Amino acid sequence: MFLEKLHNISAIILDIDGVLTDATLLVTESGEQLRRFNVRDGYAMQLAVKKGYRICAISGGKSQSVVLRLKGLGITEVHLNVDRKLDVYHEFIRQNNLTPDQVLYIGDDIPDVPVMKVAGVAACPSDAVEEVKAVSHYISPKSGGDGCVRDVLEKVLKVQKKWVDSDPSAQEDSIPSA
Amino acid sequence: MFLEKLHNISAIILDIDGVLTDATLLVTESGEQLRRFNVRDGYAMQLAVKKGYRICAISGGKSQSVVLRLKGLGITEVHLNVDRKLDVYHEFIRQNNLTPDQVLYIGDDIPDVPVMKVAGVAACPSDAVEEVKAVSHYISPKSGGDGCVRDVLEKVLKVQKKWVDSDPSAQEDSIPSA
Amino acid sequence: MFLEKLHNISAIILDIDGVLTDATLLVTESGEQLRRFNVRDGYAMQLAVKKGYRICAISGGKSQSVVLRLKGLGITEVHLNVDRKLDVYHEFIRQNNLTPDQVLYIGDDIPDVPVMKVAGVAACPSDAVEEVKAVSHYISPKSGGDGCVRDVLEKVLKVQKKWVDSDPSAQEDSIPSA
Amino acid sequence: MFLEKLHNISAIILDIDGVLTDATLLVTESGEQLRRFNVRDGYAMQLAVKKGYRICAISGGKSQSVVLRLKGLGITEVHLNVDRKLDVYHEFIRQNNLTPDQVLYIGDDIPDVPVMKVAGVAACPSDAVEEVKAVSHYISPKSGGDGCVRDVLEKVLKVQKKWVDSDPSAQEDSIPSA
Repeated sequence: MFLEKLHNISAIILDIDGVLTDATLLVTESGEQLRRFNVRDGYAMQLAVKKGYRICAISGGKSQSVVLRLKGLGITEVHLNVDRKLDVYHEFIRQNNLTPDQVLYIGDDIPDVPVMKVAGVAACPSDAVEEVKAVSHYISPKSGGDGCVRDVLEKVLKVQKKWVDSDPSAQEDSIPSA
Repeated sequence: MFLEKLHNISAIILDIDGVLTDATLLVTESGEQLRRFNVRDGYAMQLAVKKGYRICAISGGKSQSVVLRLKGLGITEVHLNVDRKLDVYHEFIRQNNLTPDQVLYIGDDIPDVPVMKVAGVAACPSDAVEEVKAVSHYISPKSGGDGCVRDVLEKVLKVQKKWVDSDPSAQEDSIPSA
Repeated sequence: MFLEKLHNISAIILDIDGVLTDATLLVTESGEQLRRFNVRDGYAMQLAVKKGYRICAISGGKSQSVVLRLKGLGITEVHLNVDRKLDVYHEFIRQNNLTPDQVLYIGDDIPDVPVMKVAGVAACPSDAVEEVKAVSHYISPKSGGDGCVRDVLEKVLKVQKKWVDSDPSAQEDSIPSA
Repeated sequence: MFLEKLHNISAIILDIDGVLTDATLLVTESGEQLRRFNVRDGYAMQLAVKKGYRICAISGGKSQSVVLRLKGLGITEVHLNVDRKLDVYHEFIRQNNLTPDQVLYIGDDIPDVPVMKVAGVAACPSDAVEEVKAVSHYISPKSGGDGCVRDVLEKVLKVQKKWVDSDPSAQEDSIPSA
């Protein structure tokens, strides 16, 4: 059922803290926030962008580190400081002429629930809160920042026969992940 | 019994290192200390502040990072450089006209024990030291910096019917956690 | 079989992210990337360099932190920004007059697969992706950044009777690891 | 037997990386190294210093972060850049008029082995290398940077009846750990 739904996906919306990161913020004495991203997630995101998927990241936070990391992977649509994620979701599908069944959302905490209820497919990391797990079609065995995005994107691309083949002559092999 | 006691709680006092963080300090070559906070803890603290709970943080340390992180969540009462936490506790309940049964304290190490013996409810993370576990009414299944504050605050707010309902139209859904 | 193959090894090529590090990047607000290395890996690399092994590190990333860390351990051959690792591999064995059976490669993700198929010995950390495990002669019980490089190098040096003997008079005992 | 030996201990020598830290180095793009210390270890070290124990830290590394962190805990004897730890050990016991049975050493890797063979008591974290475990009188259930120093110091102080009593009126309760 979950894998079946993945056939329609052409866009992925990602929460940032707790999905692309391990839900921690490292804070310096001057208040700067550092976030931990996963390079294996990065590999899958770069590949997905290259294969034509739309990827959008949404966060309630406002740290520029997120924008810089994601831009390095080819993802240019990043919404920070978002109060109501549902509004961003609706605007995103309207602008991209998408129907809900084409959109996969990955979230981990309560502010993600409203979008997860309306997106075509909802997925979460293993360490998501209970309210999120309750509305997810798929709970990854990987936690946030430890490969849950890789796990989910790999499933989408494999179902659609767009995952890399590891033949040395294939160009996908050479995508840098960092 | 523990859940019963939560009905009276209107104020929460938190130790910082080992409760709001994972008990580690990342130290730079110039001696600056970075601390790891959890965004899911942050979500619950913001919500609790919004619902009218008083939150106070106490630490023996002196790092400004703590103040900046907590201020971002709406928590303005932060005591650093504290030698005797019990003195701060007594002053806090006096100034806020609180009785001990209205106060929940979360600590992880020996300097927290004296306060934990007098506060109405004492809770600790799963990785607290034995002396602290011995005086706790509740030992969270989550460790410090990995969601123990979220776990405890969620229990308080749920018992008092103030936890979020995840209806998309509810304003609580949109509280940013980072 | 795996240990047998180690008798011929005189050069080691290492992927960086996910092998020498734990596959995470800590990103500052200005976009700087910090990486986590393991000091026990460092001890083994220094010793291997001293014993005459050639060590080369390859990464798709471009962070200078890698170069500085490895230079501190005596490893001067570091290739960053590499699109096709196979090209670097071929150039490396040509310049050093090596045959494939003399080369051990440690990788963790898909861009490593093409080299792992041609190098004499292929090894990976416990948390490598499935495609990498499938082409590895040895899967370390240690994960990336948590001692997988130490584990593999120790096996090479022990098979070749070049591992340290912990006699206090032995000079190897005093190699600093950090 | 191990606890018996602790009655004589009046001085503790600590390796730094892998004992006081979790064996990782976080490296910035400019090559700066950040280390992770544990605040619960810090509490025990401060208390031990206050109770009159001599504490000395030795490292093969050269990072100033170590000196600053330890100075903050009252430990002023820190030896960096050490090639042969055994030389520092001998000089330390000579200058302090100690006999080997008065000295406890905590190490995690091969450069620690020569000292561990001659010190009165040798202890190590749970994640020490095999060569170190083989010469240890005690293997802590805690890993490096996750409380192994706290565990060992607590055992020493308890055997000698110098551990804190958690009576709120006791001054030890108020030692800050960060």
